[in-house]
Amino acid sequence: MDEISVLSPATVANVVCGFDCLGFALGEPCDEMTVRKIAEREIRIINHDDFGLPTEPDRNVAGVALSAFVDAAGLDHGFEVESTKKIMPGSGIGSSAASACGVVVAANMLTGDRFTNVELVELAMAGEALASGSRHADNLAPCIFGGFTLVRSTEPLDIVEIDFPPLYATIIHPQIEIKTSDARAMLPKEVPLRNAIRNWSNLGALVAALSTGDFALIARSLEDAIVEPVRKSLIPGFDEVKAACLDAGALGGGISGSGPSVFMLSRTNEVAKRVGEAMSRVFEQTKIGHKIHVSPIQRSGVRPAV
Amino acid sequence: MDEISVLSPATVANVVCGFDCLGFALGEPCDEMTVRKIAEREIRIINHDDFGLPTEPDRNVAGVALSAFVDAAGLDHGFEVESTKKIMPGSGIGSSAASACGVVVAANMLTGDRFTNVELVELAMAGEALASGSRHADNLAPCIFGGFTLVRSTEPLDIVEIDFPPLYATIIHPQIEIKTSDARAMLPKEVPLRNAIRNWSNLGALVAALSTGDFALIARSLEDAIVEPVRKSLIPGFDEVKAACLDAGALGGGISGSGPSVFMLSRTNEVAKRVGEAMSRVFEQTKIGHKIHVSPIQRSGVRPAV
Repeated sequence: MDEISVLSPATVANVVCGFDCLGFALGEPCDEMTVRKIAEREIRIINHDDFGLPTEPDRNVAGVALSAFVDAAGLDHGFEVESTKKIMPGSGIGSSAASACGVVVAANMLTGDRFTNVELVELAMAGEALASGSRHADNLAPCIFGGFTLVRSTEPLDIVEIDFPPLYATIIHPQIEIKTSDARAMLPKEVPLRNAIRNWSNLGALVAALSTGDFALIARSLEDAIVEPVRKSLIPGFDEVKAACLDAGALGGGISGSGPSVFMLSRTNEVAKRVGEAMSRVFEQTKIGHKIHVSPIQRSGVRPAV
Repeated sequence: MDEISVLSPATVANVVCGFDCLGFALGEPCDEMTVRKIAEREIRIINHDDFGLPTEPDRNVAGVALSAFVDAAGLDHGFEVESTKKIMPGSGIGSSAASACGVVVAANMLTGDRFTNVELVELAMAGEALASGSRHADNLAPCIFGGFTLVRSTEPLDIVEIDFPPLYATIIHPQIEIKTSDARAMLPKEVPLRNAIRNWSNLGALVAALSTGDFALIARSLEDAIVEPVRKSLIPGFDEVKAACLDAGALGGGISGSGPSVFMLSRTNEVAKRVGEAMSRVFEQTKIGHKIHVSPIQRSGVRPAV
């Protein structure tokens, strides 16, 4: 096999009380990419979309991840990537992670599956570091493993797959720009121990509730005393959207990644759609353009396109 | 039924990364107590041990908890308690919690099981508040529910039972006194966000690992970046004991409650015994008297004595 096409899913990181560790994969949107072996030991990037992302391999997330792959595998050939991005860069649902993960999973399939999923996340981290300026894996892990993942540690990389019941996500992507550097600068260096305890009690409960499928407990645990209170000011109408979503039946949710997207979890696809309508109604008043995605949480990560 | 005898187990709270929320019940030691209805609407306490605990009901943990029970149930009679404490007060393995929980569970059995386990924890909190000066439930919850419990919140009280594989605990109780007020005063008011994230990543992983029986992950997750580093100075030889226990095969552990007891978790009873011998060897050098308990983690809480 010299060529493969894959779908690489959008992901939600910083799941409420699971800031910087808990994430999950969406069924859609997915980036589509075709990766093919080429004789030259180089990386070529061809973009079939209008996002104007760089095509020089060392300035492109997929290019950097693929270079890391070629080096780690000690290959004597290279790859060409044709990419059709569906996940808008800067949306906060793992656009760069999808680029990095898609190409390393595809390259692994083309070269005899020599790397484990954890090793692939490690390789994709090189690409993610280009995009975000720091080594983190909380979008990469769900993008490759699928489902809910918890990154217990990045050095060494320790990824835990979390059992979960059928769940549906609704995402609203308001068309505003949040600079990751701004979102990061807002984070307090220190937090009250009391709030930290509240967060880890909620995260412990959330993991237990996901494992046992206790929806009422999932709802009660989706509470963040630390990051949401400071970052929500970046997203006009955040409180109104959240209240409207809970009214519409959502279990709970919060800021996706470092925003601007906001996600909500629901028990059924019908409720998730209703939640999307409630989001739209609030945003129509703000005159800010927005896009809604409704999708099951996807149990598989990057997968062959059929 | 006018009288019942119950066993009320020792418990470990502040389970490493689960500070202030995660606890578990031991098979032994257990306090033994007999509770009987009396016609007078009053509480009588009779102690059959040498700990010299007060017998005035309003100065006695069991007495205060029972009074709360009588009030909540609107009873027109009272109770007499004969108590044989086996859990040494001040040991850090839930001695006062055992007193409070034992009597409310027994009284509930004698009066038609009108309260749920959560309600019984709520009533026992009155007694625990007398002992510790604050409302907390992290020893009470495992004492009544058994097994591993996570207290997600105390207002309102929200207790989560956590699945777990067979596990064995080794406890060393060094015969030194730690004042709860000293242990509390050491806690930082604020903690670095980075350490808080590390703690909640570990707690999320620990809950997942307990649920799936992943012993290697249990071991990796038993890590505390926040409380242990400051409180361990209260326990002479803490680092040496911990290192010796890990060498002997323990999965991990830490300070039980606010000390002075130290607990370790192991996969088998044999390893747990070996861990106890390793603890003893370290403490024999310190000339500090000590007591060792080895016990499975008990799936039931307060139970009828047979």
